[in-house]
Amino acid sequence: MGEKVVAAIQDDYPDEFAWCYGCGRLNQEGLQIRTGWQGDETLTIYTPEEKHMALPGYVYGGVMASLIDCHGTGSAALALHRKNGHEPGDGAEPPRFVTASLHVDFIKPTPQNIPLKAVGRVEEIHPKKWKVEAEVFAGDALCARGEVVAVLMPQTFLSK
Amino acid sequence: MGEKVVAAIQDDYPDEFAWCYGCGRLNQEGLQIRTGWQGDETLTIYTPEEKHMALPGYVYGGVMASLIDCHGTGSAALALHRKNGHEPGDGAEPPRFVTASLHVDFIKPTPQNIPLKAVGRVEEIHPKKWKVEAEVFAGDALCARGEVVAVLMPQTFLSK
Repeated sequence: MGEKVVAAIQDDYPDEFAWCYGCGRLNQEGLQIRTGWQGDETLTIYTPEEKHMALPGYVYGGVMASLIDCHGTGSAALALHRKNGHEPGDGAEPPRFVTASLHVDFIKPTPQNIPLKAVGRVEEIHPKKWKVEAEVFAGDALCARGEVVAVLMPQTFLSK
Repeated sequence: MGEKVVAAIQDDYPDEFAWCYGCGRLNQEGLQIRTGWQGDETLTIYTPEEKHMALPGYVYGGVMASLIDCHGTGSAALALHRKNGHEPGDGAEPPRFVTASLHVDFIKPTPQNIPLKAVGRVEEIHPKKWKVEAEVFAGDALCARGEVVAVLMPQTFLSK
């Protein structure tokens, strides 16, 4: 493959938002998914572990859903950050999104031991609500399509 | 709570189908979700681990999606098994389903350290295709709604 995500939005989340099991850089037991720009599309590359199987040799759908979920919130954060004039790594604190809804269509069984590539297109449907369409590939094979509706995290979320 | 799933469909899957990260009883590193009947509804009870957080104190959405995914395929298997005259634990090998699509609406942040209860209603939309509507509760709070379309696993799936 050789492709990698250089500047990821998750690298810039403040520490208190960096614990997500899917994409928190401080959650040592989590998936530590990282999402960045590739032109006007967003990109996440993640290789599931051996244990993340549906059957031996095939990736578990819940891990595909997790990949799409965090790819979605990360993509929405990237897009609003860019709209605000920022790119990952420029020192500005990015916005943080939560998932309102998640949809996954499983297209074909996803082989294990191959880096999965989630490619996203982001659309603003409201200043605080963004839609991310994602395709997940294993090599050249399109294995799943997903849609995430992400909403800006309420300021009150941490203080509850 | 006190509620528990006594006879689960996943207990009866043949060994080669018991490795799923979400619901395989032989996957020691997995969630080991178990799904049974409660009257005409299906029931899964699962308490996420500490690491499965979105933020400290709240459950990660990808784990909610995983719970709904395996609750869905398990519920479909329960329903077709019952249609065929069988109940979990009666010695008959149950059918096995795969997920065609998964949808989750996140209704409110899901608190950690509470057993989550997924309650499902199953509908046959084709002899090989079943729809499961699920609600996930933390205590009395409805935290997520999900829909799974599950299809009977093709006979060729293991032999690839």
